[in-house]
Amino acid sequence: MRIKVFTTGGTIDKVYFDANSEYAVGQPQISEILTHALVTAEHEIEQLFQKDSLDITDADRALIVRRVGEDPAHHVLITHGTDTMVETARELDSIDGKVIVLVGSLSPARFKGSDAEFNIGFALGALQALGAGVYVAMNGRIFRSGNVRKNREANRFEEVE
Amino acid sequence: MRIKVFTTGGTIDKVYFDANSEYAVGQPQISEILTHALVTAEHEIEQLFQKDSLDITDADRALIVRRVGEDPAHHVLITHGTDTMVETARELDSIDGKVIVLVGSLSPARFKGSDAEFNIGFALGALQALGAGVYVAMNGRIFRSGNVRKNREANRFEEVE
Amino acid sequence: MRIKVFTTGGTIDKVYFDANSEYAVGQPQISEILTHALVTAEHEIEQLFQKDSLDITDADRALIVRRVGEDPAHHVLITHGTDTMVETARELDSIDGKVIVLVGSLSPARFKGSDAEFNIGFALGALQALGAGVYVAMNGRIFRSGNVRKNREANRFEEVE
Amino acid sequence: MRIKVFTTGGTIDKVYFDANSEYAVGQPQISEILTHALVTAEHEIEQLFQKDSLDITDADRALIVRRVGEDPAHHVLITHGTDTMVETARELDSIDGKVIVLVGSLSPARFKGSDAEFNIGFALGALQALGAGVYVAMNGRIFRSGNVRKNREANRFEEVE
Repeated sequence: MRIKVFTTGGTIDKVYFDANSEYAVGQPQISEILTHALVTAEHEIEQLFQKDSLDITDADRALIVRRVGEDPAHHVLITHGTDTMVETARELDSIDGKVIVLVGSLSPARFKGSDAEFNIGFALGALQALGAGVYVAMNGRIFRSGNVRKNREANRFEEVE
Repeated sequence: MRIKVFTTGGTIDKVYFDANSEYAVGQPQISEILTHALVTAEHEIEQLFQKDSLDITDADRALIVRRVGEDPAHHVLITHGTDTMVETARELDSIDGKVIVLVGSLSPARFKGSDAEFNIGFALGALQALGAGVYVAMNGRIFRSGNVRKNREANRFEEVE
Repeated sequence: MRIKVFTTGGTIDKVYFDANSEYAVGQPQISEILTHALVTAEHEIEQLFQKDSLDITDADRALIVRRVGEDPAHHVLITHGTDTMVETARELDSIDGKVIVLVGSLSPARFKGSDAEFNIGFALGALQALGAGVYVAMNGRIFRSGNVRKNREANRFEEVE
Repeated sequence: MRIKVFTTGGTIDKVYFDANSEYAVGQPQISEILTHALVTAEHEIEQLFQKDSLDITDADRALIVRRVGEDPAHHVLITHGTDTMVETARELDSIDGKVIVLVGSLSPARFKGSDAEFNIGFALGALQALGAGVYVAMNGRIFRSGNVRKNREANRFEEVE
C-alpha cells in the first residue's frame, strides 16, 4: 500500500516564537511523529503550504484537490487546520476512487499532552482500512465528508444532525 | 458503534518505581491517553490483568478469549505486551464475527517520545474501519493474525514471509 | 527558610486556546512544576496578575515592589515575562536586605522541551544560596540587576558590556 | 566561572530497552537537558562511568574523588544515583576549597513529568551561588554533606535529625 501525506499547516504545526512574542504555523510535525512512533508503513510526505486554515483561500483549496487527484497514490492523508477542514473535505468529494482522510489537532503537536500523536495514528489506521471516500478523522471518530461539522463552543467534531 | 477495551499489561503500562529501584507493569495508561486525545467515541475499558506478556499463561489467554467472546461489543481493542501478542491473537481466531485488534507499544506510555499515543490512536482508527477478524496493529501497520511476527532484533513487527 | 513566590504571567504561563485560535497567558504553571519536581522546600505562591510583560504598566510594577517589600519572607522568587524582566528588576533594587530572584522562560512551560522546569529549578537553587540583592536568573546564569539585558535577536540574556 | 560536570549514572540516566524487556543506565541526559534549557553558562561534561549507584564500589568512589580533586575547575557538579549519593558526598569532604554539588533524580529524565530537568537546574543555580563545600541538591533543597540522608520509604531526601 502506497500512502501519500500532504501537509497544509494548522494548529498541529503551530509553534511559539519568543523573539517576537507570537506564534505561527511552523514546519510539518508529522515526520517527527511517524519517526517517534516507529512507523514502518511506506509513505511519502509533501508540504503544500503552511497556513492557519482560516487563511486558506479558494485557490489553495483548488491546489489541494488538484494535487490529490493527480498523485498516483490510492491512499491519501491530509494534515489540515481544524477550522475549515470540513470545507476542504467537501471540495475533495469530487475525486472518485481514492481513500482520502483529513486530520488535524486541537492542540499543537509541540505541546505536552497534545492530541496530535493520537490523531495522526488514528487517521493512518483508518486510512489503511477504509474503502474509497473522503473522511474527517477527529476526536477518535471517523466522519464522512458532508456529515460532519466542527462545534467550536465544545471544541470538538460531531455529526450533522 | 460500541467499543470495548480490555487491558492486560505490557510495556505500554510500565512505570518506574525508585523506592525499590525497579520498574513494573502499572495501571492501564489507555484511559489517560484517550482523555488527552479528546476522544468522544463511546467506549468501555476493563482491566483483565497487569502482566508482562512473557508471564501470560495459557489460563490467562483462555480468560482473554472467554471475556472477548462473551462481551456484547462487536468491536474489541486489546492492549497487550508485544512479546506474546502474536500468540494471543492466534487464540482469538476461534472467535467469529467480531472485529478484534491487539495493540501495545515498544516504549512505555510514560516515556517522552513513546509510541503509545500513536499506537492506541492507530489501533482505534483501524478497529472502526476494519471488517470482522483478528488483527495486530503495530508500527503503523495492520497485520492479520497468523501472518505476523515480532522481529526482536529489529524491534518491530513484520509479515511472515 | 521561608520562600515566597509571586507570579505575574509571561511566556512561561502561556497556553494555546483553539476555540478562538489564539494563545494567551493562563494560570501559573509553577505550582505544577514544583509538584512534579517533588520539592519539599517550604514555599507560598501568590498570583499578582497574568500579563505578557510588554503589557505591564508602571502601576503593575509599583504593585510588585510594594507586595515584595511588605511580605515577611526574606527570600522572594518572581516569575515574569522576559521582555521587561530587566525593568522590573531595576525597580526592585529599592528594596534592601532581601534576596529577590526573577525568572521566566523563553518557551511556554506547557511545551515539550521547554526551558521552564529547568529555569524554575535554577532560580530556586540560586535563591537559597545567594546573599541579599536583586537578580535575574536566565539561561543557566545568575545576573545582577542593573548588569543584564535581553538580547532579542539571539533570544538570550547577557551581561551589559 | 568555569563549571565542570562529572556524570556517574543513576536513575536520571535510566532508559528502557524493549529488545530484552529490561531497563538500564544509558547515556548521560544532562547534555540534552542543558541544550533544551538554552544554557549559556560555560561548562564541560565528562562521563566517569554509567552505574546504578548501588553498584558503585570503593574504587569507583576513589576515582570520583581523585578526578574532582585534580580538575582545574573550582565549581563541580556531579550527577549520581540517589541511593548512595550521600556516601559519595561524604568521601568528597576530603577536598578543600571547591564548591561541589551532587544531584540526581527520583524519576528517569526520559520520563514525562520527571524531576530531572528541575533538579539539574536547581543544582546548577545553587552551585554558582554557594561557597566552598560539598552539598547534596535534591527535592528543591540544598543539604550539607554529613547532614543528609535518603528516606527510602518517603522517597525523598531530608536532614539528619
